[in-house]
Amino acid sequence: MKCKRCKATAAVALPSHHTGFCDSCFLEFVERQVEKGIRSQRLFSYDDRILLALSGGKDSLAMAHILRRMGYCVHGVHLDLGIPDSSAPAREKVEAFCAARGITLDVVELAEEGLAIPLVKEHINRPICSACGTIKRQLFNREAVDGGFTVLATGHNLDDETSRLFANTIRWDAAQLADQGPMLPAGNGFVRKVKPMWRLSEFETAAYCFLSGIDYHMGACPYSRGASFTGHKALLAGLEENSPGQKLQFYLGFLEFGRQAFRQVQAQSPCAIIPCSRCGHPTNNELCAVCRMRDAIACTAGSLM
Amino acid sequence: MKCKRCKATAAVALPSHHTGFCDSCFLEFVERQVEKGIRSQRLFSYDDRILLALSGGKDSLAMAHILRRMGYCVHGVHLDLGIPDSSAPAREKVEAFCAARGITLDVVELAEEGLAIPLVKEHINRPICSACGTIKRQLFNREAVDGGFTVLATGHNLDDETSRLFANTIRWDAAQLADQGPMLPAGNGFVRKVKPMWRLSEFETAAYCFLSGIDYHMGACPYSRGASFTGHKALLAGLEENSPGQKLQFYLGFLEFGRQAFRQVQAQSPCAIIPCSRCGHPTNNELCAVCRMRDAIACTAGSLM
Repeated sequence: MKCKRCKATAAVALPSHHTGFCDSCFLEFVERQVEKGIRSQRLFSYDDRILLALSGGKDSLAMAHILRRMGYCVHGVHLDLGIPDSSAPAREKVEAFCAARGITLDVVELAEEGLAIPLVKEHINRPICSACGTIKRQLFNREAVDGGFTVLATGHNLDDETSRLFANTIRWDAAQLADQGPMLPAGNGFVRKVKPMWRLSEFETAAYCFLSGIDYHMGACPYSRGASFTGHKALLAGLEENSPGQKLQFYLGFLEFGRQAFRQVQAQSPCAIIPCSRCGHPTNNELCAVCRMRDAIACTAGSLM
Repeated sequence: MKCKRCKATAAVALPSHHTGFCDSCFLEFVERQVEKGIRSQRLFSYDDRILLALSGGKDSLAMAHILRRMGYCVHGVHLDLGIPDSSAPAREKVEAFCAARGITLDVVELAEEGLAIPLVKEHINRPICSACGTIKRQLFNREAVDGGFTVLATGHNLDDETSRLFANTIRWDAAQLADQGPMLPAGNGFVRKVKPMWRLSEFETAAYCFLSGIDYHMGACPYSRGASFTGHKALLAGLEENSPGQKLQFYLGFLEFGRQAFRQVQAQSPCAIIPCSRCGHPTNNELCAVCRMRDAIACTAGSLM
């Protein structure tokens, strides 16, 4: 196979785009996909102050590398989840990555917040991936708001987005469907949230990191095994194999034709968002989900003494 | 495993219902599912005159058997598609089935209509399954309207319905999504269309036929190989295997939460339905799809002379 752009021998085959690229044209292809994703969905501009949520994995580091190269005003934040054998090496990768590129970085330790993930797993009676996601969303938003950032960017790729879309669709969860997409506007105490990598597959961001020499954290989270989204990813991979490009079409079709239907339904029964009475984070309860977790941990930890 | 109802040894395991039944309790389970499907979606009543679309396969014959046993006013219609080695044995099964049960039956020969499926396949430049479906829908509706029936019933099962729902969802086809379900009301020249078997899987209708001694046509259509809906069925089977019951939940969730969203969107841009200027069948063009097929066949057949 020849590179689509320069006709050199292709190094990366992209069946979903019915094409292939040599190393340097592939890097350019990825960067153009990010640019297209930013522009087509108006994610942010050069005037924005962008906080990058950096886990240390391929997606977030590729995002940071590309946005920095493009000249956007970026600053990193890493949450140290406190998971043995997993969190320390992830944090090291982020710190080394940012230091090498002159990207400023804040690290928030969940252990210092009383929310180390192993403690949450022990005391909270709900799937740990879901509890961890709730904590991360809240702390990232807090860091963005407190730091005066206008945008919070996460590394979610097309596989993340389509597997979540699939899970929401299988359940016909109108509230989630109304809100899914590469850009969630600011409002009600939430900063604008964006996903600049939304057009790229997991394979594409991994190949980008490999070919750019980005040293990322590879270990899967030790708690994620058997999570339903991994099953949905496998299922969508089968769909993509049968019809290359179908994953992107599914997501683009949703943005163009599907989402509006759910937004109209949701607009008819709006959900009141108020500040948490304790920490001020926006919530639809008196206490936000993270404060309720803190209470549950204090309560069960207390009863064990 | 024991039968859930009578504690005899189970003969049929139903993971999606987390249960199993002996032979006679399974037959009762299936009939109750049909009853529940009719009542919950108000498909028809004992006052309706119901035309049964009978292909000769397991689903349509199981439907006819069950509705007849329940005492509904039913009459059969079979379309002889004119496909060599396939249509004649299917027709024989339907004729023998109806004769044995005293169900009155009409047979429409597509060859007499100038629409034998091999001829259509040769002259029409679109996927044959789609063209065949268009022809069948139109002729069934014509037979129902001309015969003074209030309802047209087809044997579509849960696997048919969920694979179609999945295909429509993957494309976010709002017009199709607004109209999908076990009951499409009468209007604009269309008779009410119902799918009484919508709660039952393919496996369940096949087991019902086997255990009731219903002799049905088994051969797959020789033209259906590689059709996209067969791929979607395999994909949904994988989903069901991971989470038994998920297919029914996907469909029920759509009926309860999903469909309304698409109906609202469609109601904002209604599509004008008018009678075909030649045959009178309802259409959104001057000529209906089947009359256009007849013209295309006449045109290309003429050019070959």
